[in-house]
Order: sequence, then structure tokens, then C-alpha cells
Amino acid sequence: MVTANPLLLPELRGMLAEGDLEGLRALATEIHPASVADFSEGLDDAELWQLLDALPLERRADVFTYYPIARQVELVKATDRQHLGPLLEAMAPDNRVDLLKELDPDLVEQILPLVAKAERHDIRMLLSCPENSAGALMTTEYASLPADVTAGEAVARLRSQAPDSESIYYIYVLAPDRRLVGSISLRDLILARPGALVGDLMQRDPIAVRIEEPRDEVVQKLARYDFLAIPVIDDGGRLVGIVTHDDVLDAVRQDATDEAQRAAAITPLGERYLDAGIVTMTWKRGVWLTVLFGTAAVTAMVLARAPITRPWLVAFIPLVIASGGNSGNQSATLVITALSSGDCRLSDWPRILRREFALGLLLGVLLALPGFLLALVYAPSPFEAAVIPVTIMGVVMLGTLVGSTLPLLFRSVGLDPALMSNPFVSAIVDVVGIVIYMLVAILVLD
Amino acid sequence: MVTANPLLLPELRGMLAEGDLEGLRALATEIHPASVADFSEGLDDAELWQLLDALPLERRADVFTYYPIARQVELVKATDRQHLGPLLEAMAPDNRVDLLKELDPDLVEQILPLVAKAERHDIRMLLSCPENSAGALMTTEYASLPADVTAGEAVARLRSQAPDSESIYYIYVLAPDRRLVGSISLRDLILARPGALVGDLMQRDPIAVRIEEPRDEVVQKLARYDFLAIPVIDDGGRLVGIVTHDDVLDAVRQDATDEAQRAAAITPLGERYLDAGIVTMTWKRGVWLTVLFGTAAVTAMVLARAPITRPWLVAFIPLVIASGGNSGNQSATLVITALSSGDCRLSDWPRILRREFALGLLLGVLLALPGFLLALVYAPSPFEAAVIPVTIMGVVMLGTLVGSTLPLLFRSVGLDPALMSNPFVSAIVDVVGIVIYMLVAILVLD
Repeated sequence: MVTANPLLLPELRGMLAEGDLEGLRALATEIHPASVADFSEGLDDAELWQLLDALPLERRADVFTYYPIARQVELVKATDRQHLGPLLEAMAPDNRVDLLKELDPDLVEQILPLVAKAERHDIRMLLSCPENSAGALMTTEYASLPADVTAGEAVARLRSQAPDSESIYYIYVLAPDRRLVGSISLRDLILARPGALVGDLMQRDPIAVRIEEPRDEVVQKLARYDFLAIPVIDDGGRLVGIVTHDDVLDAVRQDATDEAQRAAAITPLGERYLDAGIVTMTWKRGVWLTVLFGTAAVTAMVLARAPITRPWLVAFIPLVIASGGNSGNQSATLVITALSSGDCRLSDWPRILRREFALGLLLGVLLALPGFLLALVYAPSPFEAAVIPVTIMGVVMLGTLVGSTLPLLFRSVGLDPALMSNPFVSAIVDVVGIVIYMLVAILVLD
Repeated sequence: MVTANPLLLPELRGMLAEGDLEGLRALATEIHPASVADFSEGLDDAELWQLLDALPLERRADVFTYYPIARQVELVKATDRQHLGPLLEAMAPDNRVDLLKELDPDLVEQILPLVAKAERHDIRMLLSCPENSAGALMTTEYASLPADVTAGEAVARLRSQAPDSESIYYIYVLAPDRRLVGSISLRDLILARPGALVGDLMQRDPIAVRIEEPRDEVVQKLARYDFLAIPVIDDGGRLVGIVTHDDVLDAVRQDATDEAQRAAAITPLGERYLDAGIVTMTWKRGVWLTVLFGTAAVTAMVLARAPITRPWLVAFIPLVIASGGNSGNQSATLVITALSSGDCRLSDWPRILRREFALGLLLGVLLALPGFLLALVYAPSPFEAAVIPVTIMGVVMLGTLVGSTLPLLFRSVGLDPALMSNPFVSAIVDVVGIVIYMLVAILVLD
């Protein structure tokens, strides 16, 4: 997000206080709606509604959708219902549903009657799409044509419909039963001979996604084919919506943040870092810290039961644990990023495990060597020092195998592989690593 | 990436063996160039050139750019120079430069004379743009118009230039000295009265980025304003190129993967996981594992020097270290993601540190409590057990402060905050955490 420009706020407040609606309207139609939202975000709710009400409805809806979703919810709660009907009707279908999803279901039921029937139907359909599906990302505003019109007629139709800039550049060609049969870009329509038939110009069997297809696949396809939008079809092959490039970009950026936070054992904030309240933050971090504390407690109990007493062995505990944890995190992250970017699939598991086994061996040797040298300094004899390299080999191999297996297991049971894999890997490797250390120590020393 | 369809390969090989060029051309022009690249990637270099040579030049260049960059380099090396001149001229300027950047500079100097002079100038300009700048992301193909033509004339000009689908939808309005004065969408041109002047229809002072602006800012602006492309200007305000939505999406996806890998102490692979060789992987993981081994060795040396001898205190070493490391990773990740998404800026540091201090206190108390209970089980007396909660408070606060400060420090000296912050945080917190543990133990017990 671009931070608000605080310099404009006093000016804006002045115009609102003077009731200079003309000036406000001029200002807010000259610049991009996102900029209007950015510089007006500092206003209080009443002032903001005053500003929004001064704008033409279309513009008002545009600006409104550029506020962070939490602010949109606040604004909805701060106004009476009459305001909401026209605003919701004017909002883009996908943005409208994103807002309604954040509201109390009771409130939604009170608001829905304020919206025209066709829109209501549309809202209920979009609300019913499962999260992380193509349906949850799509909008229902798109331009469509039958195959039997000419290019000239098609352009004339588009002129009279004047669809949004979002959706005018790719036009979908539908059979009479709304089955998607082709697509054509505005560029090709304009470059074509005006008398040519759309059915002859169009790209047949366009690449599409099914409404229930997972979000990752939608992103991968849109990115691979450099599309502005990708059509979404139902089981009968009928066009039900499109997913546009800007929504995919937003989704990818949000996913990147969410996955980074998950990998660091934080429930994704879902809002700007500085906006998240201290209580929310304590909860979203504390719950996982407590879970990880639990697994660390197991390690402590294991260690307390079979104590390592020689001081030089104690000194190497953090090093042994870190070696396993670090190599495990590497493997987990590599497999998670490869799965989520589509670079490899679940069916590649034998190759993945073979690679990680080989890497575990190589990296184990790489760390065992300096480990042995360091142990020689502190151990009473070279023979006893061998405990360290043997243990390091063991925990590094354990790390790479647990780290690569866990995300694959998560994916195979339909869970997001990024779901806490990294902290889980560390936790498992810590406990088992300590056991390996103790066993090796007992075998070598006793 | 979408995985190649291995079923089509034998068919394709058959057509190549029979010399069925007509069939190949028909197949490869009917489907998306990305799909052609996907299903032909399994061919060997000679077969692939045979296929590419069967295609019209424009199509050949389109398909070529959809191979992974490593494969493009292989193909360049596998052919003679005559092939390369026309291909490079037909490639999009940004894709062409992405390829040349991967080649040996000597080879580039041999290839450049094969390219027309104007293109050569363009290549040198793009090659000179610093990495991670707007210039490194942009393409130099865009549609432009003067302000004094009518909408009708503008559409006619676009028809005759027939620019790429990438760049026809936003047209930039230039003054005679190429200064960017406005922008207009194809939609608005088509909907306008044909006699209206572009200068009256255009959006004035369009949002643009400077050529040296960091990539993060480009992404944030394009995403915030939902643009198809964002214009790039030089210091004189002259238009030098555009950054398109598809390249931003690719950059964001690549960045997400790179940052996840960096956060797990891996030099970003920059290629598909399964394509990376074992030696490369060992190097890219081993170098950081060795660095982290070095910091863990410091922890071991500290521990060896002032040994913790009571077995129950030894048992708590991994738990104490994990508490600090986990909370530190959380803080580092939150600050890194907030900085890179633009949710907060370096100047927010006082707020960030205040928040993290408060959270350190709260999370410290949260973990100190179960820590104390667990210690009561193993410690000889409640008084001695207090070592654990006091230490946990200390390491958690240390973790949140180191975790939040380090990315801010990295950013303030101009480094990418994601650059290894997470593993560094763990390493520092490990060493200092052990020292805290020993100090608290000495203070309480001796």
C-alpha cells in the first residue's frame, strides 16, 4: 500500500468544513481513485462519507473499493442503510463480495434486500464459491458476443455497452446456451476487416479454468499465458465469470506475505502490520509460540530423562540442533516453493526424496568435517570427538528427509504444504535430533 | 510453470522425422505459444531448432521466449549465428535483454553486430539499467501519440502500426520532445467521439516511475492502481519504456520464491527446483549452512567456556534457545514482509520498535508461565526453577528486538531487508540467549 499523503488532509478538511462540494468533486475526479482513497484515509468516518457523497455514484464506488477492507467495514457500520444499496449496486461484483464476506452474516441479510434482484442473485452465487477457488477470485462483469456477428458490429456493440476498462480488452464468444466457444481480443477486433465474422476471427477452445479450480492453478495459468484475464466456466462449460490480472497480482502478493508469516509460525495477519492491534498480534504469534513451546518441552523432558553430563557434550547441544533445523528448513522451503509455484507436483515425490537424500549426505559431510575439528578441541580424545560428526551426519540427513517429506504429506492429504511446515520441521528435528545425539554418545562413549 | 505434456512428444518427433513442416506450422499456430513451448521442451536442441525454423519468424520468437531461460541459453549455444540475428530482432526487447544477460559477454559482443543498429542501441540501453530497477523490468515497445490528433485518427494510426497486444491498450501521449504529458486507454479512444482531440480526452500527468526507481516501488504502484502497464520516464520526464502487468506478475512470483529461500538460508536457486544440479544445490545451501555452523560454533565455544553442569539446566538449553529464535523469526518476518509490501517504511522505526517491545513483554510472559511450571518439575527448588522464566523473558525480548532491528538496519544501509535476516537473527539470538541463560543461572544459583 502507498502511504497516505498527510499534507492534503488539512486542505481536504477545510473543503469539507466549507461545504465546497464542487471543489471536492473536481479534485476527486481528476486523480486516480486509488489516490483519492490514499489521501482521504485519515478523515474520520463522517467526513469520509461527506466526501464520498459529493462524488458521482460510479466514482464513489471506485474510490470506496480502494480503502483497506477493514476501513470499508467501518464505513459500512458508520452509515445508514440507504447509503449502502446504490453503493453496493455500483461496486464491481468481486469487490462487493469481498466486502460482504467481512461483514456479520445478519448484517448482510439486512443489506441484501436493498440491492436489485439480479445483483442479489450474483452476490449469493459468488458468496457460495469456496475460498481459494477460481470462483472466489472471479468477477461476473465481462464482455461477451455471439459468434455470428461481424467485427464492425462487435465494436459497435462494445461501444454501446461501454464495459469497464477491466473487461473490455478480452471478449468471450458464447454459444446460445452460454457455453464458452472462443475468445477474441479488442486488438484483433479493431485490426480485423469490419465485415469479418467473430466466429472466424476468434481463438477457438480458449484456455479457461473451472469454477472450483484451486487459486494456485489459476495464478499459474494466467501467469504462464500472460493473460489480462482468464475465463471461468462451470461443469457444463458455460462462462460464469473472469479472473482479471489485477486480482491475481493482489492475490499473489497477499499469498507471498501470508506464506512468509506462516513459515515463521505466525497466523497470517491479513491486514497491514501497523494496523494490527497488540491483542491480535499477541494471539496470532502467541498461539504458535505456545505450540512450539510444547514441542520444545518434549525435548527438555527427553534430555532430563537421559541426561548428557559431560560438559563438552553439553556445549555442542545447540550446534547439533541448529544443524538439523537449518538443513530441514532449507528442504521444507525448497519443496514448498516448488509445489506452490508449480515447478513440481506431488507425483514427483520419488525424485524429490532421492535428491534430498543425496543432498542430506553431501551437506552432512560438509558440516561433519568442521564439526569434527571443533570437537577435537574440546573432547578428551579423537575417538570421543567422533560423536559430533556422526551425530551431525545423522541430524542433517534427518532434517532433509523430514523437511522434504512433511510438505509432501501435507499436500497429499489436501492441506496447504506451507501450513506451518517449517516450524513443525524444526520441532520434530529438535526432538529426534537430541535422541540421536544421546544414542550416538552412549554408543561411542559407553 | 505448467509441466510439459509428454504424450505429444512422440507425435511431434514423428512429424519432425517425416519433415511434415506444414503440419508443424499448423499445430504451432493454432495453440498458445506457451503451450507450444511446454509440449516441445522435451525435444533435443537440434529437433527444437527444426521445429522453430518451421514457424514464421514472429511466432518463432514468441515460442522461443516461453522456454525457461536456461533452455534458451542452451539453444543459442547449439546453433550458428545466422539463426540468431532475425530471432533476436523479432523478440520483445525485454525478453531479448533477459536472454543476453545470461550469455557470456564475449558471445554477446559477437552476436550484437547481427542485429540492426536501432535494436542494438535499444539492447545496450536496457543492458545498462541496474538490476532491480524499473529499467531492468521495462520493455521499449509501446504505443504513443501526439496530443493534437483526433480520436478517429488515433485509432487509424494504431490500426496501421498494429502494436503488440501487450502494448496497444494504453497509449502514451508525448510532447514533441518525447516528454510524457498524458495517457489514454484504447477503451476511451473507442468510446470517444471520433472528432475529439486526444489532448482533451487524455488523463494528464499520468502516474509513472523513474527509470532508476526500485522494483518494489514499481510493483506497489502498478498493483495499487490496477494498471495494465506503467510508463517509465528518464530524468527529463521523457518516456523511455513501459513495465507491463505480466512482467510484474512474474517478478512478484519470482521474488516470493527468492525471499522464502533466502529466509531459509538458501541462495535463491533462480531456476526450477528439479532442474537445479546437485552441485549447485550443495553450494547454494552449503555456503549458508557453513556460515550458520560458524555462529553455532561460537555458541558451543561460549558454552564450553562457562559450562552449565546441573543436568536439569542442560535439559532446558534447547527450549530456551528455541523460545528466542522463534519469537525473533516472527518479528523479523513481520518487519520484512511489511517493508517489502510497502505496508510500512523505514521512517516508521520508532513505532515498530515500540510495538515489538510491547509484544516481547507479552509473549515473554506468555512463555515464562509454562516455562516456570515445567521447571518446577525438574528444579530442586521453586527458587532455582525461577531461572527458567526469567531467562525466557530475556530471550523472547531479545528475539523480538533483534528480529525487528536487523531488517530495519539492513534497509537503512540500502540492503534488501530479506537478505538473510532470519538465519542471522537466529544465530545472534542463539549466542546471546545462551549468555543470558548462563548469567541468570549464575545470579540465581550462586
